[in-house]
Amino acid sequence: MAWYQREIFLPAKKRGFHLITNEILHNLPELKNIKTGILNVFIKHTSASLTINENADPSVRSDMEEFISRTIPDSISYFKHNYEGAEDMPSHIKSSLLGASLNIPVNNGQLCLGTWQGIYLCEHRNYGGSRKLVLTLWGE
Amino acid sequence: MAWYQREIFLPAKKRGFHLITNEILHNLPELKNIKTGILNVFIKHTSASLTINENADPSVRSDMEEFISRTIPDSISYFKHNYEGAEDMPSHIKSSLLGASLNIPVNNGQLCLGTWQGIYLCEHRNYGGSRKLVLTLWGE
Amino acid sequence: MAWYQREIFLPAKKRGFHLITNEILHNLPELKNIKTGILNVFIKHTSASLTINENADPSVRSDMEEFISRTIPDSISYFKHNYEGAEDMPSHIKSSLLGASLNIPVNNGQLCLGTWQGIYLCEHRNYGGSRKLVLTLWGE
Repeated sequence: MAWYQREIFLPAKKRGFHLITNEILHNLPELKNIKTGILNVFIKHTSASLTINENADPSVRSDMEEFISRTIPDSISYFKHNYEGAEDMPSHIKSSLLGASLNIPVNNGQLCLGTWQGIYLCEHRNYGGSRKLVLTLWGE
Repeated sequence: MAWYQREIFLPAKKRGFHLITNEILHNLPELKNIKTGILNVFIKHTSASLTINENADPSVRSDMEEFISRTIPDSISYFKHNYEGAEDMPSHIKSSLLGASLNIPVNNGQLCLGTWQGIYLCEHRNYGGSRKLVLTLWGE
Repeated sequence: MAWYQREIFLPAKKRGFHLITNEILHNLPELKNIKTGILNVFIKHTSASLTINENADPSVRSDMEEFISRTIPDSISYFKHNYEGAEDMPSHIKSSLLGASLNIPVNNGQLCLGTWQGIYLCEHRNYGGSRKLVLTLWGE
């Protein structure tokens, strides 16, 4: 059994959905050592989140942002938690619906992602700044 | 420590929510060897997803499909990503909201599911075809 | 490698979102033994769920309840599954959207939560009663 754990910083990204598979892999050279295992990717924030979705067409990411921000709009008047701006509370809701962590199987030194799957950082703030992730990889 | 990992194919299911607990267990004879562990179930697609919900009344599954397809309807006009039909982009959104993997504790050779919990395949496409899952089981 | 697994009961909470980080930690004295690992928190119910969100301002929890119960209201007339009251089927939907388990990295005997992250129990029933969780901790 081997364990690898590392905290990484992703540079600030604009509000929306961003493909980060390569940024993750770049920070995980030990992946090739694992024959069978799991990678946990965890985001240490409550106004950004992680998901897996289509890795090819950028319009999936822009349609996703459009839909989620129309469904959970910045302008909801009954929110009490709005100290950090109109997208403060909507960001918290989006992050709970999408989730703070991913658990991806590893086989023969590679992530077992489907052909069309990629890892997304979902940035819900207008100016979220750099984001901290914890990568934990374990297996044999 | 033991690790078991297997890719399985579920036969095509119609659009909607389907109970697949037995299909998972049927493909996991090694479960009985694990005293304490975790099962990760991962779907290698971005237009179908996995969730845990009520295992008894089929109307939970049909109400779920009705609600989610009214909330994320096939007919949204502003979507750009619609190459594969009206339910293409809605399928991607549903799959991110429901999630691509489950992590279920294992105790004494059995999944620690509650009395009313079952594993669902959520098929978001009208004709999604066969679906690939990766089952990864580890423990002692 | 060490494994710890325990079923715990949380006392009944009213409908809404509740911070339970301390209840989890109180039931997990072995956490200090783990240098690198993962904690899986699993809820054995289909009308309550788990999420990670902001741990400081209670209005995040009340705004979350307000938003989710307006978006998935008790009064939807087309639901067939309503044997246990108007919030029966909405509870199932909320639980699938928020999820039944969390996977949190562990480092140097502590959960790797961000400064503002806490663990929430999401109680979707009006009178849900006591809730069973399974805590599974593994690592080295």
